[in-house]
Amino acid sequence: MNSNPIGIFDSGIGGLTVVREIRRILPNENIVYLGDTARLPYGTKSVDAIMQYSLENADFLISRGAKLIVIACYSSTSVAFDIIEKHLSVPVIGVIQPGVERAIELTKNGKIGVIGTSLTIYSGAYEKAFRRTNERCEVLGKACPLFVSLVEEGWLDHPATELIAQTYLRPFKEDNVDTILLGCTHFPLLMEVFRKIMGSVNYVDASREVGTKVAEELERLALEHGEPGGDLAIYLTDLSMNFKDIGERFLGEPMRNFSRVSLKGK
Amino acid sequence: MNSNPIGIFDSGIGGLTVVREIRRILPNENIVYLGDTARLPYGTKSVDAIMQYSLENADFLISRGAKLIVIACYSSTSVAFDIIEKHLSVPVIGVIQPGVERAIELTKNGKIGVIGTSLTIYSGAYEKAFRRTNERCEVLGKACPLFVSLVEEGWLDHPATELIAQTYLRPFKEDNVDTILLGCTHFPLLMEVFRKIMGSVNYVDASREVGTKVAEELERLALEHGEPGGDLAIYLTDLSMNFKDIGERFLGEPMRNFSRVSLKGK
Repeated sequence: MNSNPIGIFDSGIGGLTVVREIRRILPNENIVYLGDTARLPYGTKSVDAIMQYSLENADFLISRGAKLIVIACYSSTSVAFDIIEKHLSVPVIGVIQPGVERAIELTKNGKIGVIGTSLTIYSGAYEKAFRRTNERCEVLGKACPLFVSLVEEGWLDHPATELIAQTYLRPFKEDNVDTILLGCTHFPLLMEVFRKIMGSVNYVDASREVGTKVAEELERLALEHGEPGGDLAIYLTDLSMNFKDIGERFLGEPMRNFSRVSLKGK
Repeated sequence: MNSNPIGIFDSGIGGLTVVREIRRILPNENIVYLGDTARLPYGTKSVDAIMQYSLENADFLISRGAKLIVIACYSSTSVAFDIIEKHLSVPVIGVIQPGVERAIELTKNGKIGVIGTSLTIYSGAYEKAFRRTNERCEVLGKACPLFVSLVEEGWLDHPATELIAQTYLRPFKEDNVDTILLGCTHFPLLMEVFRKIMGSVNYVDASREVGTKVAEELERLALEHGEPGGDLAIYLTDLSMNFKDIGERFLGEPMRNFSRVSLKGK
């Protein structure tokens, strides 16, 4: 029994999709969320910079009493998971491994497609995670940076979105992929377009799998919060023009308790 | 006669298109360039954050002896030009005003379209600059954030690019705009697509106009470097995966003298 919060960070507010899933599965848990909106996106930054920012984010959450850290950022999980796990004494869960395990459960023909930002795909983090978990899967990665901008522009059913998805997903069709892993917080919003092009293959939304994994870890380590709680505190390193509108779309509920925080000197 | 460098900053490496134009027009001038790649893009940040970053960038260039500052970033010029000009004792040139003056020279029917990132357009900086320069022009602004991602993805002639441009530029066609101002460092690379959709209207590439403006200012203030020089030092706050390839595309020559710099504590 532990009332300390779960600490979750992302480079921005996309990680609120992970918060939503965790709140759905674990409504009693208190949560502290940090979105590093002043330095987003991480995908275009160097590996060194992402490591440094990620460590600063994790330290902030620890200073807020986090009993477990979730890295809700794909770029950060891709390049900084190992260093954060080594640096901290609390358990750390990233967004990559839970999705990988689910994709392996679902695939029938062993052919899995992974889509993400350029950094996530080119870092090789997914390939490594798949190899470690099940050697026999054939994994095809495809960087799809335009999907992020299309979601942010709100063009979910623009004809250009379909054309772009056709180009990006063509290799998956040609290779007869039967399971697609959505390796970016923004991509679940494009599910209809994916279905139109790829039909009824399996889709894995990693945010959902992370929630399940967090519940398992808390139970295993007897760190659950048994009593009613469910506080959510949101910290952002910058408050941009429309963060609240976009944030609430990801979170699925009003953002009540948020504040700006500076990580300088931490 | 003054051998001190011209200082130029941008949120990233897109501002190297401005460097290229200045080097073409003023080959003797020494140049110090700062790209704040660790904190790009500015377009999604708050006004406060952009002001703070812009001041830090300008101070860095002043510490390197800059005799004149060029703000090669549209977001930064949009929201931080006035505060930087007030803060510094050297002349400051932004990317907005020179393009506005050229567009007014070129238009016949007084209908001008401006395209840029969301922040550049919604800040109202272009409208203000047009009103100040010539009250009779009718100015139509259109935020085109997807163009940035398309250029970075290299999809200059993908069918989706044309579809997206058709959507973005439709209001200009309907309104019979005769001059289009490209208010973003990335957009000149899409000129062929614009021509295909809009035909032979006038196009103003602000980077070019900035070069002319800098030459005029240096002459007016007797700050020119008369002797052969032409050193170019490039400072970046982060060295990302492919900055050199993309940077050289914008600069139009090899990037020889570059280094990483940290602005913390400046």
